[in-house]
Amino acid sequence: MKKAEKTRQFIIEKTAPVFNKNGYAGTSINDLTEVTGLTKGSIYGNFENKDAVALAAFDYNYSLVLGAVAAKVNERTHAADKLKAYIAVFAQLYTMPVFQYGCPILNTATEADDTHTGLRNKVKLAIDKWYGGIEGIIKTGQQHKEIKKSVNSREFAGAFIALIEGGVMLAKVTGKSEGLESALKQARKMIAEIKKQ
Amino acid sequence: MKKAEKTRQFIIEKTAPVFNKNGYAGTSINDLTEVTGLTKGSIYGNFENKDAVALAAFDYNYSLVLGAVAAKVNERTHAADKLKAYIAVFAQLYTMPVFQYGCPILNTATEADDTHTGLRNKVKLAIDKWYGGIEGIIKTGQQHKEIKKSVNSREFAGAFIALIEGGVMLAKVTGKSEGLESALKQARKMIAEIKKQ
Repeated sequence: MKKAEKTRQFIIEKTAPVFNKNGYAGTSINDLTEVTGLTKGSIYGNFENKDAVALAAFDYNYSLVLGAVAAKVNERTHAADKLKAYIAVFAQLYTMPVFQYGCPILNTATEADDTHTGLRNKVKLAIDKWYGGIEGIIKTGQQHKEIKKSVNSREFAGAFIALIEGGVMLAKVTGKSEGLESALKQARKMIAEIKKQ
Repeated sequence: MKKAEKTRQFIIEKTAPVFNKNGYAGTSINDLTEVTGLTKGSIYGNFENKDAVALAAFDYNYSLVLGAVAAKVNERTHAADKLKAYIAVFAQLYTMPVFQYGCPILNTATEADDTHTGLRNKVKLAIDKWYGGIEGIIKTGQQHKEIKKSVNSREFAGAFIALIEGGVMLAKVTGKSEGLESALKQARKMIAEIKKQ
């Protein structure tokens, strides 16, 4: 990796948790210089503006969540176990570093929906991809007779994602895992119900 | 109402949607003067600082949600119908003015959880009250033999709230009602399952 690329990557990795904690509007250029130890000139020598850092930081945070999910999904074979992999990742809310300040998808979604088209489009893509992942698992599971034929994969995905992200919100704002645990228990129940006996 | 109280209320009602749209960090004093047509001096003559306006604006937004829920809950008698009242309110995401920029509880929760103790405490109280409302309906419903005795009211409440708020997030960020509808359908299924036949 060239020096410029290294610096760029360093800025992204250092600022990504700051954007996830403070949000886009709540993160100032001072926050970026402080956390990186770099000057404003150095940051803007590598990124056009705060927007460009924020978009790259979201990509980075999202890639960490995606990587954690993919690792757990890929090590399992039965469709129901693959779905449970999503639950296993979000059950680590208090130990996975990327979740220290909550789920970047949820945080960015609620902030950017009405205010920041660039970030909003990135979250929309992340949600699309999440939907696609779950729908794909269910459809393959239906072909393999692991999942009931009657299941509407798209409806399942919407409710499943909603449960998980709503549970994360409850855990983060209350400071207690109880609400997330209730949500994940319900998500497990949803999986048990669509599994072919 | 005295003139000072009227001005205060005017500021709250005008700025409440702005805080819900932009978030706390994303709302500037310029936004507040612009939406009210008042001077900075006039706003700070009525509120100590931006914090004080934001806290009052959250109370106002929350009271609108609470009022809409209470109106629907109180006109129903069976516990299952009272629970469905929450779903009916959030199904109006696209028509209820307070929801124009999403649910104020969700928006404030995800922004304030790591950054703003005052707002976070207000959302925690709102979540506590929501839990309490649902638990109360279930417990009364159990006494009236409308809800199964085996139901854990607290777990139900956590998953139910998570589903609704996660569904709101999906609807707001995708710009389509599909995800919210899937979440609310699942929430209706949860109610059907705890209802005593």
